[in-house]
Amino acid sequence: MKLLRYGAPGAERPGLMDDAGQIRDLSAHIPDIEGEALSPEGLARIAALTAEDLPLVEGQPRLGPPIAGTRKFLCVGLNYADHARETGKEPPPEPVLFAKAVSAISGPHDDVEIPRGSDRTDWEVELGIVIGTRAKYVAEADALEHVAGYLLVNDVSERRFQSERGGQWTKGKSHDTFGPIGPWLVTRDEIADVQALDLWLDVDGERRQTGNTRTMIFGVAHLVSYISQFMTLEPGDIIATGTPPGVGLGMKPPTFLREGQVVTLGAAGLGVQRQRMVLA
Amino acid sequence: MKLLRYGAPGAERPGLMDDAGQIRDLSAHIPDIEGEALSPEGLARIAALTAEDLPLVEGQPRLGPPIAGTRKFLCVGLNYADHARETGKEPPPEPVLFAKAVSAISGPHDDVEIPRGSDRTDWEVELGIVIGTRAKYVAEADALEHVAGYLLVNDVSERRFQSERGGQWTKGKSHDTFGPIGPWLVTRDEIADVQALDLWLDVDGERRQTGNTRTMIFGVAHLVSYISQFMTLEPGDIIATGTPPGVGLGMKPPTFLREGQVVTLGAAGLGVQRQRMVLA
Repeated sequence: MKLLRYGAPGAERPGLMDDAGQIRDLSAHIPDIEGEALSPEGLARIAALTAEDLPLVEGQPRLGPPIAGTRKFLCVGLNYADHARETGKEPPPEPVLFAKAVSAISGPHDDVEIPRGSDRTDWEVELGIVIGTRAKYVAEADALEHVAGYLLVNDVSERRFQSERGGQWTKGKSHDTFGPIGPWLVTRDEIADVQALDLWLDVDGERRQTGNTRTMIFGVAHLVSYISQFMTLEPGDIIATGTPPGVGLGMKPPTFLREGQVVTLGAAGLGVQRQRMVLA
Repeated sequence: MKLLRYGAPGAERPGLMDDAGQIRDLSAHIPDIEGEALSPEGLARIAALTAEDLPLVEGQPRLGPPIAGTRKFLCVGLNYADHARETGKEPPPEPVLFAKAVSAISGPHDDVEIPRGSDRTDWEVELGIVIGTRAKYVAEADALEHVAGYLLVNDVSERRFQSERGGQWTKGKSHDTFGPIGPWLVTRDEIADVQALDLWLDVDGERRQTGNTRTMIFGVAHLVSYISQFMTLEPGDIIATGTPPGVGLGMKPPTFLREGQVVTLGAAGLGVQRQRMVLA
C-alpha cells in the first residue's frame, strides 16, 4: 500500500493512493497514519479495505508528510562508501548516527527554506525507514518485523552549521523544512528488495545524485538492530539511511542551493519529491 | 506554580503541588501539562484556580515527567567552564548542541537503566528550560517570553557510547530512562534569578557535583535565542543547559555507576530527584 496524508499543513487527513493513482480518504477508518495504525495489525486492517469503496478525493490537494506522530528522526551519516569518500572521510567502522529535529519534517513538495545566514544549503536523497512496532535490543534477523515501510527523504543540510558551528551535526540538519518526507509511506510488502533501489536527485533539471541502496555500507536490517541497542525505536520513528554520492559539498567547486532553484528527487517505488528553494 | 504529572507510566494525570506540599488534581481543567497549557495564557488560566478547590490526591503516587508532548530534548554541552576543563576540553566559542531521544524521558524517581554492555554510565545534574511558545529567530531580549518554566534534569550519559562509537553524542545520551525530568515544572515567575541557582548531585550519599548556574558560559536567554536560529522551538521542548563539574568521567580515576547505586540530585527551587540504578 501507498499511504499518505493530504490537506493543509497541520490539518492533513489520512488517505491512500489507489492503483489508478487517485487519492482515497481513510479518515472514516483511522484517525491518522501514526502509532497503532503502523503496526502489522493496523496495516492489515487498512489492507483489508477495498480502495474503490473509499471516498475519492477530488482535485490535487497538497500532500503532507505521509506519517504523523514521529518522535525521533534519526539519520545515518556516511553510509555509502563513495559518498564518504567525496566528503573526504573514511567509511566508518560502525554506523554514524545523528538526530534531526522532528520540527524539520515537511511535505514532499513543500518549499524548502534556506536559513538566514546560510551559504551552504545542500541536498541528500535518502531511503527512509519507518518503524511500525517498538524495537529495543532486537536482533538483525528480527529487525524487519519492526519496520512498517519506507519513504523517500531529502535530508537537507546546512554544511557550515553542521560542521563549523560547534561540533555536533544536529545544528545543520534541523531547520524547518529540512526534512521533506514522502509522497507516500510504502508498506514493506510492496518493496521486493530494499537493498536494490535506485535513487536520484536533480537540481534545476540537472542530475546531481545517482545511487542504489545496494552500495549502502550498513543495510536496513542492520541499522534497525544496531540503533535499537542504543535507544528504543517507536512507531512512527524515521531512520534516514544515508545518501549516495553527488551532494553539493562534494562538487568541484562545492555548489549549494540558491533561492528559486528547484530540487527533484526520487527512489524506485517510493515516488518523487519536488521542492522550490525560498529564503527563511 | 509547581506543575506535575502523577500516576502510572503512560497514564499520568496533570496536577500541581500546593503550598502545603500536597498534590492537587488538574484533570478537570486541562487534558495534560503540554502544548497550549504551557503558553502564558494557559499558565494564567491554571494560576487563576484556587488550589484548595482542586481535588486533593491521597497517598504517595508515582511522579511522572512533569510535562508531556515533548518533541525535542536538546542539550548543551560543555556549558560550565570548569566542567569543560575536567573533560579536557576548551570552553567552546559558541554553544555545543546535541539531541537526546525523547524516548529517554522518565519520571524523577524512576529507576535508571544501565545499558547492556555499558561500563561508563555517568550522571549530569542540569537546569532544564521548558519552552512555552513557538520560538524561531527570536532575539535574546525576547527569549524568556518563550519560556514556560524550568525543571531539574539528570542528563544520564554513557561515555563510551557517546565518544567511542561513531562520532555523534546522541548514541550515548538516548537510552531509555537517560532523561529523568522533574519532579515539577516550576513556572518562570517563581524563579527570581535563573542564573543564580545552586545545583548538586550525590551518589550513594556522597557529594559528586556542586555548582551554580551563575558560572554557565551561555545563559538561558542566550541559549533560547541561539538555538532558535537553527530550528524552531515548540511548546514542551526541553533544553538541558549543561552540567557543572563533578561528573564520573572527570574523577581520578574515572568512576561510573553500578547496579544498585542511588543517585540523588537537586537544584534550588526545582526540587530533588532520586534514582536507583538497574540493569537493562
